[in-house]
Amino acid sequence: MFDSISIIGCGLIGSSILRAIKNKKLAKEIKIFDHSKEVTAYLKKENICTDVSSDIRQCVVNSDLIIIATPLSSYKEIILSIKDSLKKDVILTDTGSVKKEVMKIIHNINLKDVHWIPSHPIAGTEESGPKAGQAEMFENRWCIISPPENCAEQPIKKLKTLWETIGSKVKIMTPAEHDEILSLTSHLPHAIAYNIVRTVMSVEDKLKQEVIQYSAGGLRDFTRIAASNPIMWRDIFLDNSENVAKGIDNFIERLNELKKAVNDKNGDKLYQIFNATKEIRKEIIKAGQDTSKPDFGRKKD
Amino acid sequence: MFDSISIIGCGLIGSSILRAIKNKKLAKEIKIFDHSKEVTAYLKKENICTDVSSDIRQCVVNSDLIIIATPLSSYKEIILSIKDSLKKDVILTDTGSVKKEVMKIIHNINLKDVHWIPSHPIAGTEESGPKAGQAEMFENRWCIISPPENCAEQPIKKLKTLWETIGSKVKIMTPAEHDEILSLTSHLPHAIAYNIVRTVMSVEDKLKQEVIQYSAGGLRDFTRIAASNPIMWRDIFLDNSENVAKGIDNFIERLNELKKAVNDKNGDKLYQIFNATKEIRKEIIKAGQDTSKPDFGRKKD
Repeated sequence: MFDSISIIGCGLIGSSILRAIKNKKLAKEIKIFDHSKEVTAYLKKENICTDVSSDIRQCVVNSDLIIIATPLSSYKEIILSIKDSLKKDVILTDTGSVKKEVMKIIHNINLKDVHWIPSHPIAGTEESGPKAGQAEMFENRWCIISPPENCAEQPIKKLKTLWETIGSKVKIMTPAEHDEILSLTSHLPHAIAYNIVRTVMSVEDKLKQEVIQYSAGGLRDFTRIAASNPIMWRDIFLDNSENVAKGIDNFIERLNELKKAVNDKNGDKLYQIFNATKEIRKEIIKAGQDTSKPDFGRKKD
Repeated sequence: MFDSISIIGCGLIGSSILRAIKNKKLAKEIKIFDHSKEVTAYLKKENICTDVSSDIRQCVVNSDLIIIATPLSSYKEIILSIKDSLKKDVILTDTGSVKKEVMKIIHNINLKDVHWIPSHPIAGTEESGPKAGQAEMFENRWCIISPPENCAEQPIKKLKTLWETIGSKVKIMTPAEHDEILSLTSHLPHAIAYNIVRTVMSVEDKLKQEVIQYSAGGLRDFTRIAASNPIMWRDIFLDNSENVAKGIDNFIERLNELKKAVNDKNGDKLYQIFNATKEIRKEIIKAGQDTSKPDFGRKKD
């Protein structure tokens, strides 16, 4: 499908793409760059990729497709480093969780003869690093592609086919649509997960130990969500700050309503709140986004 | 272990206890009562229990152990109905998620020759009803027992052994301790899960459909938590209102701090917040309350 693919950043997502592309034999050559020696040493040792560049320009010079899979805050420096080493008509994509800010950066750098088409595979776990990567990471998961308005058809098609071949369902939407939807489905829920863990853990030490001991009853699931890569999440919140702040305001408004019902001991109102959310769960199961099979808690003996 | 056990309420938890007690042969006789004909018909049809009473007094009259596994708001009526039909020295327990309010109710009813010892098995799924019940529900899960101050030793020991035999790890604590810890580990996280689903779903219809479509990125886990039995949760929030309201206040205080960091684009503060919660996750895994194995999303093909 491609003569040469470069992957910049081989953590959880980058190394999963690497494994998937290799498994499906989608490129004659795959080159990687990662600023961490630990990461590149691991990938070499495990024979996942031997073509490791120590110079980022060297990594991309012959590529038809470059995939940036690093935190959002590193894009500018990366693109400035490689911009004079790019092959004509190269496809440049990424895997970041926010799009609008990155579009501005790319626009300002004013790349020539480059097809910049951002991607966002909605996949991952709370783990970080290449050890946690999996070739199957993208199977049956959405990947959102947000091409700029003036983008050519052919490169979009080629990138779409790549994601589909490694298992994704692809949806095309604008950067603004993407950032709004993701602020609701992912960024706000993560803000809340981080906040509940921080709130609960602010109690005094003796109680804190007991809270950890008996965390199976709900808190545990939040700590899993709140254990993801802190740099990645910092960058997401910086780049999508407007949508996230708006979401937090709406959230607090509704939480005050819930608190009022609790304080007033308003059973009817509480029932109404708790019953409405049950219906939404059904719609999500219907949309194929989760299974109705109950979760008995993930702790195995 | 017991001559006769009665279970009042055979939903998710009650029917799981029934199955577990039957499997382990812990009683010569098990009688059940449930006000829902659908529930009792199901348990008869599946041959899970054939000794179904249509009269609640009849159900308990010969019992050595009575287990109430109904929503908290039904306790008063149930106990008033059975109080004149109880065998001397019967052990009366429950499975409710809040203790202090129930203690008051029992105290006011002034039961004679009854060993009232509340239990709370920290187990369950987002499903309701006897079809979702499982004999293995309590295996390796905590069960908290909160005996009143003047309770005799022998019945506590007997109840503790019952829970342990069906797989639970038992911890004894006061009702006040129980309610405070559970408000942090379970009730506040549930309030937050309900609230995030409600917030996200308050957007206009077109966006809502897209949010459901792409819910895999974080929101999905919250909808699972928020899909639990609404009557059960209404009652929990009414009975533990003080602890829950206090938790909500602390939560909002911290969320405003997070929002300020987002609005100020304060990357250092955001990193600090997101990194701190990662550490807590490690402590929970160390405490044996979850596995470090990553969760790739529960949707199966």
